[in-house]
Amino acid sequence: MKNKLVYKYIGKVLIAFSALLMLPMLVSILNKESVIPFFIPAALSLLIGSILSSFKIKNKFLYAKDGFIIVALSWIIISILGALPLWINKDCSLIDSIFEAVSGLTTTGATIFREVEHLEKGILFWRAFMHFIGGMGVLAFVMAVVPLANNDKSMHVLKAEMPGPSVAKLVPGIKKTLFYLYGIYLALTVTECILLLIGGLPFFDSLLTSFSTAGTGGFAILNSSIASYSLFNKYVVAIFMFLFGVNFNIYFLIMMKDLKAALRSEELKVYILLFVFSVLFIFLNTMNTFTSISQAFSDSFFHVSSIMTSTGFAVSDINIYPTACRILFLMLMLVSACAGSTCGGFKISRLLILLKTIKRELLKAIHPNSVRTITFEGKKVDEDTVRSTCLYLLLYVIFIVVIMFIISFDKVNFSQAVNATFTTFANVGLCFEISHFADFSVLSKIVLSIGMLLGRLEILPIMVLFSDLKK
Amino acid sequence: MKNKLVYKYIGKVLIAFSALLMLPMLVSILNKESVIPFFIPAALSLLIGSILSSFKIKNKFLYAKDGFIIVALSWIIISILGALPLWINKDCSLIDSIFEAVSGLTTTGATIFREVEHLEKGILFWRAFMHFIGGMGVLAFVMAVVPLANNDKSMHVLKAEMPGPSVAKLVPGIKKTLFYLYGIYLALTVTECILLLIGGLPFFDSLLTSFSTAGTGGFAILNSSIASYSLFNKYVVAIFMFLFGVNFNIYFLIMMKDLKAALRSEELKVYILLFVFSVLFIFLNTMNTFTSISQAFSDSFFHVSSIMTSTGFAVSDINIYPTACRILFLMLMLVSACAGSTCGGFKISRLLILLKTIKRELLKAIHPNSVRTITFEGKKVDEDTVRSTCLYLLLYVIFIVVIMFIISFDKVNFSQAVNATFTTFANVGLCFEISHFADFSVLSKIVLSIGMLLGRLEILPIMVLFSDLKK
Repeated sequence: MKNKLVYKYIGKVLIAFSALLMLPMLVSILNKESVIPFFIPAALSLLIGSILSSFKIKNKFLYAKDGFIIVALSWIIISILGALPLWINKDCSLIDSIFEAVSGLTTTGATIFREVEHLEKGILFWRAFMHFIGGMGVLAFVMAVVPLANNDKSMHVLKAEMPGPSVAKLVPGIKKTLFYLYGIYLALTVTECILLLIGGLPFFDSLLTSFSTAGTGGFAILNSSIASYSLFNKYVVAIFMFLFGVNFNIYFLIMMKDLKAALRSEELKVYILLFVFSVLFIFLNTMNTFTSISQAFSDSFFHVSSIMTSTGFAVSDINIYPTACRILFLMLMLVSACAGSTCGGFKISRLLILLKTIKRELLKAIHPNSVRTITFEGKKVDEDTVRSTCLYLLLYVIFIVVIMFIISFDKVNFSQAVNATFTTFANVGLCFEISHFADFSVLSKIVLSIGMLLGRLEILPIMVLFSDLKK
Repeated sequence: MKNKLVYKYIGKVLIAFSALLMLPMLVSILNKESVIPFFIPAALSLLIGSILSSFKIKNKFLYAKDGFIIVALSWIIISILGALPLWINKDCSLIDSIFEAVSGLTTTGATIFREVEHLEKGILFWRAFMHFIGGMGVLAFVMAVVPLANNDKSMHVLKAEMPGPSVAKLVPGIKKTLFYLYGIYLALTVTECILLLIGGLPFFDSLLTSFSTAGTGGFAILNSSIASYSLFNKYVVAIFMFLFGVNFNIYFLIMMKDLKAALRSEELKVYILLFVFSVLFIFLNTMNTFTSISQAFSDSFFHVSSIMTSTGFAVSDINIYPTACRILFLMLMLVSACAGSTCGGFKISRLLILLKTIKRELLKAIHPNSVRTITFEGKKVDEDTVRSTCLYLLLYVIFIVVIMFIISFDKVNFSQAVNATFTTFANVGLCFEISHFADFSVLSKIVLSIGMLLGRLEILPIMVLFSDLKK
């Protein structure tokens, strides 16, 4: 790490993180539980953060590489600090705590707990809250503390973290863009929470379920996930999972009353089509296995929404689904929903750019002299984006294969190895044949945690960090 | 099909094919079996071929598109004609015959027969001989009959068929290049056959096993594949499978006594390294499950060679392998061996170009202003090759997913769907949990047959054909 400014920013991120730890501490106090599990990481976070951010550094420039490193290091450090409450509270071992925290902050939702109902309220709150924090990214902290005088400087951080192939700047100035993004994020979360309350769910349950939905995480507070919720509340969660899978730019356009532009979005159209197709496909292939048609439909709707948006809530045992449905679910996991949403996975926009690239290249092979450009969302896609999208697919495939290979040394069959890898790498959390990750070996837990981070940060920042550490 | 010249060339291919059918007919006569199963397709082939090639056509130009169409149509028509002997002989249904013939000509080796020992000698010969024909491609026919006055014209056909990202022209002139390639092919086949004879195998068995090895096909003449062969003969087959996985350019360089250049080949080095690593990996992970260390080693050696070169012979039940070994085998299936060999799959050279592309793009992301070129085998790789390699990966992944999805409607579990798809698309033929393809539905058999053709012809010709038929 040549650029010491990196430490300063990470320091500021840690200070913000210590502030966020106050919330679960408050929940613990209200429920007369010990505050120690949250106090220690909060104090540690504040201490290290203060030391790092007090550095006097002359260099004021951040390069793209530095942006990547800030993001990668912030996530890793925060994951470790976020794991401490679980460990100190003796809920699980250190490695299990880290797995759970990484799963929380990357909004994966894969859990190491066989059951969760015995956990203290503060811990339950923290698990869901980590999803909420992770949903819009540690970006939150980084952006709030990075001096915004130089927009380009901050964009480097943004570039490393923002999901999807490109961030359409909503309004000039990053601070304002973030303000709108978080406004939408909060508004959706609050709306869901209110609807769940109307549906008869207690406040605590409504809030935590909304946190998990917002981050498209999937940590539940009941052993049966969402299964015991009322039909109304199941639909509320299913619809909000779907809504958090929409590119936030669309909401901004709707806010600006430019509904036409919002509905013109290619990605949105494909998202909706793919969603409707998947629900119908699962429904038609499972309607005979359910006693009631309406449950067959609501379960199909819920699980497609849950898996496609990489959330991972469940309303029934998904292991009953036939092979064709399972393969569709695995494909939905990998593709996921829109860029610019809180979802994990490859993103529909990337898929569309790749499909358009294929079409162009095939036409080129047949008519070698033709010149064609790719357009997406009405704009010309430059060759750099095409190249980086192809590169991302390459890395995506390679990391999946490598992770699966390492996992396969554990006590798993082929199908379990595939499912465990896909569900963590695409930040889903729900999968076939595995209900929790407690029985995995330490090596597998570490590798799957790295996989969750790679998937969430879209690979590049972690790779840059490691290539920098080697120097 | 605007260009009628295409029909003329296909006609010539069919005439050559009818000549090739004389060989199994001869085997049938020698074994006092009916010649009708071979006579009918031979006569049909000659008739249609004569009609098509007698067309008077003024247009003398072939475009790249026409080359693709000739190759795709030739393979499809020949697959159907090659299926007739099995069908007329009442060995299986028409759809099963086509599956078997496609599997033979694409050198896959996936069989619909539960057992093969009851088949007549002529049919057994034909199955192995289809591998031999397919090994170097229907290209054989096309090239032998295409007037070679205009080299560029013929190159269009070559471009569509030759496996791997680029064909290094060994010597000027296609006719001469082919002469050397087939010389090497024949010499290796004859050598293997002689060694198997020395190892105590009857002539008929030796010849057919050599045919199957040469095409890296995998159709065996015993129900137990190669399991009952002597250890010496097992090693002969294993080593020759490995040798047929080497780029034939290497043999040409060795023939020209340029051993230095041959050993400089990056692809060869990686092939050997990957091979040695895989053998050791499988050996170390299975040595405890075998009673003798030497069998554990010979089985590992044999199966790595068989799967990596997309041959598909087996010497023991591969279902005993643990999950990690299975995943390694699946990866080896997909990657396969060298370009310019008779193997299926993605090819090591493509993988290397992709890995180098990833490295370059990562360096570019960190140092945006740097300019880097990719070199492979000592030469600069142009951007068109990089692009078409990425495109090939995209199509490869998409077709695997689509085929797997359709197969999953059959009575298969997830693992079987993956294995059936990989083993046919990569033209291997051997796979886990499936010993034959008899029980698959008609739809699955058709889709897997298309998959074998797509895999063998490296996708593009078939896609061009269908896009042309739509007009």
